[in-house]
Amino acid sequence: MMLAKEGQMSYRWARAHMTILDKIMIRNETKKPLSGYKLGFCLHITKETSVLVITAKMLGAEIAICSANPLSTQDDVAAFLYSEGIRIFAWRGQSERQYRECIKRVLQSRPDILTDDGGDLHIAAHKLGTTRFYGGTEETTTGVKRLEILQSTKRLKYPVIAVNNAYTKHLFDNRYGTGQSTIDGILRTTGLFLSGKQVIVCGYGWVGKGVSVRARGMGAIVTITEIDPIKALEAHMDGFNVKQLSEIAQLGDIFITCTGNRRVIREEHLIKMKDGAILANAGHFDVEIDVDYLSSQDKFPVLVRPNVDCFKFRDKKLYLLAKGRVINLVGAEGHPPEVMALSFANQLLSILFLAKNYHSMENKIHNVPPDIDINVAHYAVEAAGLKIDDC
Amino acid sequence: MMLAKEGQMSYRWARAHMTILDKIMIRNETKKPLSGYKLGFCLHITKETSVLVITAKMLGAEIAICSANPLSTQDDVAAFLYSEGIRIFAWRGQSERQYRECIKRVLQSRPDILTDDGGDLHIAAHKLGTTRFYGGTEETTTGVKRLEILQSTKRLKYPVIAVNNAYTKHLFDNRYGTGQSTIDGILRTTGLFLSGKQVIVCGYGWVGKGVSVRARGMGAIVTITEIDPIKALEAHMDGFNVKQLSEIAQLGDIFITCTGNRRVIREEHLIKMKDGAILANAGHFDVEIDVDYLSSQDKFPVLVRPNVDCFKFRDKKLYLLAKGRVINLVGAEGHPPEVMALSFANQLLSILFLAKNYHSMENKIHNVPPDIDINVAHYAVEAAGLKIDDC
Amino acid sequence: MMLAKEGQMSYRWARAHMTILDKIMIRNETKKPLSGYKLGFCLHITKETSVLVITAKMLGAEIAICSANPLSTQDDVAAFLYSEGIRIFAWRGQSERQYRECIKRVLQSRPDILTDDGGDLHIAAHKLGTTRFYGGTEETTTGVKRLEILQSTKRLKYPVIAVNNAYTKHLFDNRYGTGQSTIDGILRTTGLFLSGKQVIVCGYGWVGKGVSVRARGMGAIVTITEIDPIKALEAHMDGFNVKQLSEIAQLGDIFITCTGNRRVIREEHLIKMKDGAILANAGHFDVEIDVDYLSSQDKFPVLVRPNVDCFKFRDKKLYLLAKGRVINLVGAEGHPPEVMALSFANQLLSILFLAKNYHSMENKIHNVPPDIDINVAHYAVEAAGLKIDDC
Amino acid sequence: MMLAKEGQMSYRWARAHMTILDKIMIRNETKKPLSGYKLGFCLHITKETSVLVITAKMLGAEIAICSANPLSTQDDVAAFLYSEGIRIFAWRGQSERQYRECIKRVLQSRPDILTDDGGDLHIAAHKLGTTRFYGGTEETTTGVKRLEILQSTKRLKYPVIAVNNAYTKHLFDNRYGTGQSTIDGILRTTGLFLSGKQVIVCGYGWVGKGVSVRARGMGAIVTITEIDPIKALEAHMDGFNVKQLSEIAQLGDIFITCTGNRRVIREEHLIKMKDGAILANAGHFDVEIDVDYLSSQDKFPVLVRPNVDCFKFRDKKLYLLAKGRVINLVGAEGHPPEVMALSFANQLLSILFLAKNYHSMENKIHNVPPDIDINVAHYAVEAAGLKIDDC
Repeated sequence: MMLAKEGQMSYRWARAHMTILDKIMIRNETKKPLSGYKLGFCLHITKETSVLVITAKMLGAEIAICSANPLSTQDDVAAFLYSEGIRIFAWRGQSERQYRECIKRVLQSRPDILTDDGGDLHIAAHKLGTTRFYGGTEETTTGVKRLEILQSTKRLKYPVIAVNNAYTKHLFDNRYGTGQSTIDGILRTTGLFLSGKQVIVCGYGWVGKGVSVRARGMGAIVTITEIDPIKALEAHMDGFNVKQLSEIAQLGDIFITCTGNRRVIREEHLIKMKDGAILANAGHFDVEIDVDYLSSQDKFPVLVRPNVDCFKFRDKKLYLLAKGRVINLVGAEGHPPEVMALSFANQLLSILFLAKNYHSMENKIHNVPPDIDINVAHYAVEAAGLKIDDC
Repeated sequence: MMLAKEGQMSYRWARAHMTILDKIMIRNETKKPLSGYKLGFCLHITKETSVLVITAKMLGAEIAICSANPLSTQDDVAAFLYSEGIRIFAWRGQSERQYRECIKRVLQSRPDILTDDGGDLHIAAHKLGTTRFYGGTEETTTGVKRLEILQSTKRLKYPVIAVNNAYTKHLFDNRYGTGQSTIDGILRTTGLFLSGKQVIVCGYGWVGKGVSVRARGMGAIVTITEIDPIKALEAHMDGFNVKQLSEIAQLGDIFITCTGNRRVIREEHLIKMKDGAILANAGHFDVEIDVDYLSSQDKFPVLVRPNVDCFKFRDKKLYLLAKGRVINLVGAEGHPPEVMALSFANQLLSILFLAKNYHSMENKIHNVPPDIDINVAHYAVEAAGLKIDDC
Repeated sequence: MMLAKEGQMSYRWARAHMTILDKIMIRNETKKPLSGYKLGFCLHITKETSVLVITAKMLGAEIAICSANPLSTQDDVAAFLYSEGIRIFAWRGQSERQYRECIKRVLQSRPDILTDDGGDLHIAAHKLGTTRFYGGTEETTTGVKRLEILQSTKRLKYPVIAVNNAYTKHLFDNRYGTGQSTIDGILRTTGLFLSGKQVIVCGYGWVGKGVSVRARGMGAIVTITEIDPIKALEAHMDGFNVKQLSEIAQLGDIFITCTGNRRVIREEHLIKMKDGAILANAGHFDVEIDVDYLSSQDKFPVLVRPNVDCFKFRDKKLYLLAKGRVINLVGAEGHPPEVMALSFANQLLSILFLAKNYHSMENKIHNVPPDIDINVAHYAVEAAGLKIDDC
Repeated sequence: MMLAKEGQMSYRWARAHMTILDKIMIRNETKKPLSGYKLGFCLHITKETSVLVITAKMLGAEIAICSANPLSTQDDVAAFLYSEGIRIFAWRGQSERQYRECIKRVLQSRPDILTDDGGDLHIAAHKLGTTRFYGGTEETTTGVKRLEILQSTKRLKYPVIAVNNAYTKHLFDNRYGTGQSTIDGILRTTGLFLSGKQVIVCGYGWVGKGVSVRARGMGAIVTITEIDPIKALEAHMDGFNVKQLSEIAQLGDIFITCTGNRRVIREEHLIKMKDGAILANAGHFDVEIDVDYLSSQDKFPVLVRPNVDCFKFRDKKLYLLAKGRVINLVGAEGHPPEVMALSFANQLLSILFLAKNYHSMENKIHNVPPDIDINVAHYAVEAAGLKIDDC
C-alpha cells in the first residue's frame, strides 16, 4: 500500500509536467471516445506511462499492461496502477520467461488496440494467429523496423501507426529524451566525472545524436562510430571525432551503444579495451554489447555498485552497466515527463484515431497523421510558454 | 588578363579542396560521358563553381553560364572561365534587367540540361514555350519549392533532379555551409564583435539551424522566430530562445533572415528596432527584409562600409548589409570549397545521370538517386581521411 | 555491518578513480610522515573523503572526523570509516545542535592539524581559546572568506593553507565538480527535462561558471544574475543572458544559487515566481534561498519526491530541493572521485607540508605552495593518460 | 585624400561601437586633463586605435604614433590620422629597418608617456639611456613579460601600468577578441571550411582559450598542446583533446600558435605534417612558427591567395598565413571595436592616472588600479544594455 502511495506521488509529479495530456483529455473527456475499447499496452512502467494509462482510462478505455523490459519497471508505479484497477503484469527483475508470460497475459485480455514499445507485443500478437486486433501503435525505431519486416513480407495483420515517426516524437524523445536520461543513468550508476572523459558513442541516429551532444555538453570528448557514411559525415561536420570502433577501443573511457544492431561491441573490441573501461547500452534491446562473451571470460562478475558489474579478464576490469540493458530506464527513471508528454500525446491521439478509423485503414504501417503531429507541437509550444509568429 | 590570372589562382585553391570532384572526373574522364551535351548553368560565379564548370568541360560538355544573383559574381573567376573558353554571361553588380538578359543568353545557347540555383533559369526556360530540354537540376530549397508549384499544376516540361534534397547536400551545404559563410559575411562586412550580441535568426530550417549554431559558437545569444510549431519546438529544445519577431524586435543587435519567405522583417518590426541594429539576409532572394520600406523612410542611405548601408529614420540608424541580398555570397566568398564539393558532386553525378537516363524519366521532380547520395558520402568520408565501420 | 560493507564498496570504487592519492601514498608510505600527528577533519562524509581519510591513516595519522553539513553524510561510508577504526562523529540528518556537538567532539580529540570545509571547524577552534593547533587547511571559498575576516583582525591563531586557492583545486573542483554534481543532484531529485528550460544561475564565480556551462550543455537556456560588473560582463561575453533577478524571477523554471551570500532569493523574488518553479542551492550554506520566508507562507510543505518540498502560497506551488542545502551533496553523491582526487591531493600534500613546516609558518592564510599545485597537475595529467610538451 | 576619407569612415564606424570611450571623454572633456602632455603610442594602426588617438587628442594630448607590427597597419586609418594632425609613422608592409626607424621617430618626439603593445617601444626607450619619461602603459602579455625582465633586474626606468593585467582587458580582449578575430583572419585568408577540421591550438593561455572555444564553435575538432600541466589539465577538462605537438603534427589540418614563445612549430613538426596543412600565428611576434626553416626548404614560396604562401618540400605543400605574423591583424581587421573599447578604456584611464600620479609612483610594473577596472566594467555593462543586481 505504501508502495502504491509512492507510485501515486510519482504519478502526480509526472502529470504536473505533462499538461499536454491534460489538454487532450479535457477536450475529449465528456465524449469518452475510448469507452468500449480494450487497450493492450507493452510499455516501460514509469511514472510517465502511468499518466498515459490513467488518461486513457479517463477517456473510457479498459486497459491491460505489461512491461517493455524485464528490468525497467518502477515497482511503486506498478503498485499504483494496480490500485487504480489497471490489469498490470509487471515487476522489476523479471526472468525472460516471466517477461514473455506477461506479454501473453496482456494478449489474453483480448485487447482491441495494441500499443507497443520495441515490437515484442506486436510480434507475439502476430504469432497468435488471430486477426481480431483493430490496430496498433509503435513507440520506437526498433519496433518500427521489426514491423517493416512483417509488412515487407505481407504478414502485417492490422494497421499500425508508427508513433516513432512523428516529428514531435523522434526529434525530441529519441534525441534529447534519451540524451539526457542516458547521461542521467550513467551518472547515477557510476558517480564518475565526465569532463575530459573519452566517450565513444556507437551509432549516430537520433539516439546517438542526443547522447553525443549531451555528453559533450558535460565536458566529455566524444568519438562516434558508424557504418553509414552519411551519418558518419554528419557526425564529423558536427565536430565529433569519427573512428572505427576497433581503432578507438583501447582509448575509450566510456562506451555507449545506440545502434539498434546486435553485437556491436564484441570480443575483438573488448579485448582491446583498457582497464577500467565502462560499457553502457542506450538501445532498446540488451544485444548491442556482447554480454555473453563477457560472461564467458568471467563467470562470476562482481557487483561493485548497484547496476555496475565488474568483469575481470586479461588482467583488466571492465564495468558493465545495467547488465547491458537500456541504461536510462534501468539506471535512472527513463525519459523525463516533459518529453514523454510529446510521445504519449502522439500515442493517445493515434489510439483515438485508430479507434475511429481502423475499419478504413489498410493493414500497413501508417505515419502519424500530420495534423496530429502539428497539433502536438502546438500544444507543446503552449505548454512551454512560447509564442510563435503567424504565417 | 591579370583578373583571369587571379581567377585561376582562386580556381586552383578551390580545386585543391574539392578532391571529390577530381575522383569523379578521373573515373569518367576517358569516356567523356558529357561529350555532345550542352549544359546551361545559372549558378553563383565563385571559385567553387569554376571547379564544377571546368570538370564538366573536361568530361566533354559544352557550357554556357550566367549568375544566380546580380551581386554574387566574383569577377576574377568570371574572367578565368572566359579565358578557358566558357560562354559566360556574368559580372558583379548587374542591374535587374541585365541579370534577366544573361539568363536569356544562356537559354539561347540551346542547352540540353539546365543546372539552376534558385529556379530563375528553370522558370525562364518554361516561359520560352519550347520543350527541347532533356532535363535539369536544382540546387536550393527555394528553387525546388518553385518547381513544386510547376509540378503540382502539371506544367513541368522536363525531369528535374532536386539536388537540394540529397542528404549529402542539404545536411551540410544548407546548414553548415551557410552557417559558416553567413558568419563570415557578417564579420567581413561589419567587423563587429559577436560575443554577447543578441542575434535574431528568422527561420529554423536547415539554413536557420546552421546560422544559429554557428552564431552561438561565436558567443552570441541567439533567439529564433518561426511560424512552424515543430521547428519552433526544435529550436527551443536545442536551447535557443524562441520568440515572436514583434516581441524581440527592439532587443536584437543583429537580425538574419533564413526563411525563403517574403517581407519577414517589415515596417512593424523595423519601427521597433533599436538604434544601430543590423539587418542581414541569408535566404536566396532579396525579399525577406522589406528594403522598399527602408528606402521609403530614407531615400539616401549612406554607405558607411563596403556592403553596409545606413538608413536613418525615426531618430535611429539601421544598417542593411549587402542591400538585403544573400550575405554570404555578396559579403564574403560564399560557401567554402569543401562543402561545395559535396553539393557539386551531387550536381555532376545528377547531370551524368540525366545525360544517360533522361529519355526514360518522367517530367517531374526526382530525388537524387540514393546510390549517388551514398557514393558522395563515401567520397567525402575518404576525402576527410576518415574510416568507418563495416556493417 | 552490511552498511559498512556497502561503504567499503563505495570506498573501493572511489579509490580506483583517485589514483593520484595512491601515488602520493606510495611515495610516502615507508616514511609514515604523519605518524605522531592527530588530524581533525570536518568534511562531507562521502566515498571520496573516505579515500583521503584512509590514505592519511596509512601515512601514520590518527584521525577524528565530523561532517561539514548535517544532511550530506553518506551513512554507509560513515559506517565503513568507523569499522576501520576512525573516530567518526557523523550521520545523515543531524539537527543543528547535533552538528555543532560533533564538531566539538573532533576538537576534543585534541587534533594537531585541522582540515575544514566551510570554516565551521576553524571558527569553533578559535572560540576554544586554546592555541595548541599547529595549523589547518581549508577546502572552500566560503571558508577562506571567513578566515580572511579573522586574519584581517589579527585573530588567526595558526597558519592555514587555503587549499581552495590552488589552481588544481578551484579550476576543477569548484567549477566542473560542482557543475556536474549540481546537474546530477537536480536530475536525481526532480527527474525533469532540462532541454529548453529557463535556468537562472545566481552568481558567476567558479561555481556559477561550472553550473552555467553544464546546464547549457544539457540544453537549458541559462540566465545569470550578478552583483559584480566584471563577472556580469564575463557571463555576457560567454554568451549567457544577464539580468537582474527581480526582472527574471517570473520567467525562470529552475533557480540555482551559487553566490556564497545570504538571502539571495528572497520574498521580492519568490512572490514573482511562476507556478511550478524549482529552487536549488549549490552554495556551501543553506542561507542563499530564504527558506524562512517560504516556511512562513506555507507551514506544512508537502514532500512530493525525496528531497523535493512543495510550498503552496499565492495560488502557486514552488518546489524547494534539499531543503535549500547544497544540492549536489544532499541530492546526489557530491563531486565525482576524479575531481576530488585533485582537491584531496592538495589537502594531503598541504597537511604533509604543515606537519613538516608549521613551526616556521606565520599565523596567516597561506596559498598552497606552487610546487604542490604543479605536482598535483602533473599527477593528474598522468592519471588522465595525457602527454604534454616539454618546454 | 580618398584614403583619408575611407579611414574617416572606418573611424566613425568604430567610434559608434566604442561608446565607453565617449563616456570617458565626456566626463573629462572640459578639463582637458591631458593638455600639456605628449603621448607616444606604438599600437596596431586600426580603426579602433584611431578612436583612442582622437579621444586622447580631444582631452588635450599631443600624440606621435607608430605601428606595433610591420604588416598590421590599415593605410586608410593612417591617412585619416595624418589628416587630423597626428604625427604618424606607419604604413602597411614596412621592412624591419623601417619599423625600427618609426619607433625611433616616436621617441624623438619626446613623449612624456609611452603606450606600447608588445614592448618594442619600451625596450627602445630604455636603450636611449634617458630617464625623461613620466611613465608608460603596456597592452599585451608579451610586452608585460618583457618588462618583467627589466623590472627583475632593476632596470625599469619609469612606472608602467600593465593594462593587460586588468580583468576587463585580458578576460575579453585576449580571449574573445583574439578568439573571434583569429577565426575571422583564417576565414578571410583561406576561405576554407572549419566544420570537422582538425585544428591544433598551441598554448592554452587566454589567447589559446579564446581561439579554441571559437574554433570549436565553428565546428572544428580542437586539440591543444601545452607545456604547463595546469593549463593542459584545464584544456582537458574543458573537453579538448590534449596531445604533444609531435604526436598530433601529422593529423592537423590547421595549426594556430598562441604561446608567446619562440619556434613552437619547428622542423621536427613541419616534416611530419600532412600535405595541405595550414599554419597560422595568433601570438604577438612572428617567431612562433619557424619561418626560417620553411624558407630554407623552399626559397620561392608561391602566393596562392592574398596572405597565403605555399611552401613545397618533401612532396607536400604547407600553407603559411600572413607570413607567420599575427593573423587577426594582418589577415583581418584585428579585434572588433566593442572589445577594443574595453582595452582602450583601460589604456585611456591609465594614461590619465599616470598623468596625475606619475611623480608618486615607483619605477615598477603596476596593475591597473582596481577602481579603473571596475569602472570600465560598469561602463561596458551599461553599453551592452545590461542591468545587474545591487549588493
